Amino acid sequence: MEPVFLTLADTVGAARRRSAKWAADDPDVLPLTVAELDVALAPPVADALAAAVAASDTGYSWAVPGLGRAWAGFAARRWGWAVDPAAVTAVPDVEVGVVEVLRALGARGRPVAFSPPVYPPFWAWVAVVGAVACEVPLARDPWRLDLAALDRAFAEHRPAAYLLCSPQNPVGRVHEAAELAELVALAGRHGVPLVVDEIHSPLTLPGAVHTPLLTVPGAADVAVSVLSASKAFNLSGLTCAAVVSGSPAGRAVVDRLPPDLTSRTGHLGVLASVAALEHGDAWLDGLLAALAARFDQLGDLLARHLPEVGWTRPEATYLAWLDVSALPGDPVEAFLRRGRVALQDGARFGGPGFARLNAGTGPDVLAEAVARMAAALR
Amino acid sequence: MEPVFLTLADTVGAARRRSAKWAADDPDVLPLTVAELDVALAPPVADALAAAVAASDTGYSWAVPGLGRAWAGFAARRWGWAVDPAAVTAVPDVEVGVVEVLRALGARGRPVAFSPPVYPPFWAWVAVVGAVACEVPLARDPWRLDLAALDRAFAEHRPAAYLLCSPQNPVGRVHEAAELAELVALAGRHGVPLVVDEIHSPLTLPGAVHTPLLTVPGAADVAVSVLSASKAFNLSGLTCAAVVSGSPAGRAVVDRLPPDLTSRTGHLGVLASVAALEHGDAWLDGLLAALAARFDQLGDLLARHLPEVGWTRPEATYLAWLDVSALPGDPVEAFLRRGRVALQDGARFGGPGFARLNAGTGPDVLAEAVARMAAALR
Ligand SMILES: Cc1ncc(COP(=O)(O)O)c(C=O)c1O
Ligand SMILES: Cc1ncc(COP(=O)(O)O)c(C=O)c1O
Repeated sequence: MEPVFLTLADTVGAARRRSAKWAADDPDVLPLTVAELDVALAPPVADALAAAVAASDTGYSWAVPGLGRAWAGFAARRWGWAVDPAAVTAVPDVEVGVVEVLRALGARGRPVAFSPPVYPPFWAWVAVVGAVACEVPLARDPWRLDLAALDRAFAEHRPAAYLLCSPQNPVGRVHEAAELAELVALAGRHGVPLVVDEIHSPLTLPGAVHTPLLTVPGAADVAVSVLSASKAFNLSGLTCAAVVSGSPAGRAVVDRLPPDLTSRTGHLGVLASVAALEHGDAWLDGLLAALAARFDQLGDLLARHLPEVGWTRPEATYLAWLDVSALPGDPVEAFLRRGRVALQDGARFGGPGFARLNAGTGPDVLAEAVARMAAALR
Repeated sequence: MEPVFLTLADTVGAARRRSAKWAADDPDVLPLTVAELDVALAPPVADALAAAVAASDTGYSWAVPGLGRAWAGFAARRWGWAVDPAAVTAVPDVEVGVVEVLRALGARGRPVAFSPPVYPPFWAWVAVVGAVACEVPLARDPWRLDLAALDRAFAEHRPAAYLLCSPQNPVGRVHEAAELAELVALAGRHGVPLVVDEIHSPLTLPGAVHTPLLTVPGAADVAVSVLSASKAFNLSGLTCAAVVSGSPAGRAVVDRLPPDLTSRTGHLGVLASVAALEHGDAWLDGLLAALAARFDQLGDLLARHLPEVGWTRPEATYLAWLDVSALPGDPVEAFLRRGRVALQDGARFGGPGFARLNAGTGPDVLAEAVARMAAALR
């Protein structure tokens, strides 16, 4: 099942999508910004949604037990992870899942640690719960957890939680099993609960192996995971994610979540996620192969048109983390103003001198975007 | 445009909806519970959703300025209420809107007043923000605001907010303009901000006149409103609501809401709400006429089969608040166990001795339900 990507013709006029990625900028701008994927829905997902709309089945969601069973099947097939369907709690999105888990962990007024460069809302989520951001930056070359720095930060600040992004947006890092094992050991030693945002895990690219945190020995006692089918299947606007626990301790955290997160989850999001997780494997494999090809293309385009830009090919996600520090002036601003191509400034992720480029689009869109970016600098 | 209701045949087997109302009970139970409406989508809404699914337009929502303009048009046409489109903030649902407004008002640790019998989550919302429920029950016969009791409660408890339900679920009361004016005067006098949940206002039935709180002179300085198209157009599972302010003071509250409520709103919810508000008037008028007929039918059915049950015809909503105190034993339990009909126990709303019946269904479903309820008591 080949994924069908948007083409340049789909980016203009009435064909242009009305989602945030496509609506936020002027109509002549090519947006390589918000983490939406420019694909046609996987056929099983499109069918499930069309059927629900045709049946006017648009009332409140009812996620049990379907969503838990769907995640359990997907996790077993793709990662060999044995998830108990009853330990899967539907939440509207990853943000709500993380924020409410942090509240349940009593983070208010205390430090919460995480490792930039990372998805910018991590700062906002910590602020929303009234906690204090404790930044423990990634080590570089390659981008990876700085375990020694985490050890020191856990000892010094005793954070209420460490919020892990795995795989890590924007750097595309798939954390290694040994690193995660060491992180779990640190968490146990210092009594720091782990909250892992695994939203990008279904987007682990060929060649990399994602280790779900809760499969690391001992992890389930100190960690809960937040997952969604929304990135891989482009369902963000339908609002369905899941908090997964794997031990009585994890369950106790989930039991303290507000009671109605599940009914606030999008009903079409639940139906679409179940269809994606149960019947989307072949489409997802096609997508991952296409994204690998897209990153090949991006490497060629950058080498040809923007040789001053550095990057490391991501191991997961459809996002490229570009080192634009060798370019003069404010390149992100020049790309937008003169090239009519929108990227996201790395400073927002805690990575000044970098820019995030969303490569989850069609090959002609990507080629046009990079050509325009290069032209904007001339 | 006649609304099309579910029939008994739609309640069984594969035709049964998968939303919370239809999934929560055993498959042989007729659920007259959760506030979902058993209708086919309004045609403009169905078209908008089918088009979005066909275009795979399922990324993050982008509600500005479309949702504000749609609410402004609807409010002007239906209530003569001049809403500034820029003063409409999209939020995922009414719950999130109310909870975050209460947080923005600094309600944590303080009393929040409201008037039972009322939608049960009012208690949960107050608890979620860490506030303390301050109950000021409605006066009876007819159910209405107890303004003298509110005056005393505001003076004595100095609540961080009064949370009004207008029209009021479950009693179906459309608060009168004079009552609302007096409430606004009390709020001004005691310095108590008003938060009004107007989710049922589009469901004001023929004969009643809804007064949007912000149209009451002086109200905009002390109140913000939370609205949604979700009840009238049955879009709860698509998650789109709106917080509306009407003064700099109201705007200052909205400006303190967390920044990303709007992008967490359902994208299909925004598209469906805009279609409903802009092109749904004729369908909505047909719905209101049909609901009036349904309440005629309910009155006949109760008089014939369950004459011991008392009720007052609601002025708004599709919900009937039944006085079942003259029935022996636990009637809600008997209806369910022996009659296979689910109602909601009034005690959950702060009204023991009552039961809430959702009459927003097809005539044959309602007739069958009441017949089974009566049989269950024999
Ligand atoms: C790491 C990460 N977490 C969370 C999110 C947002 O998830 P949600 O929309 O479910 O809150 C994103 C979106 O791009 C992300 O990259
Ligand atoms: C008075 C009232 N407020 C709020 C809600 C729920 O709204 P939402 O699903 O948007 O949170 C309901 C649902 O029935 C309701 O009756």
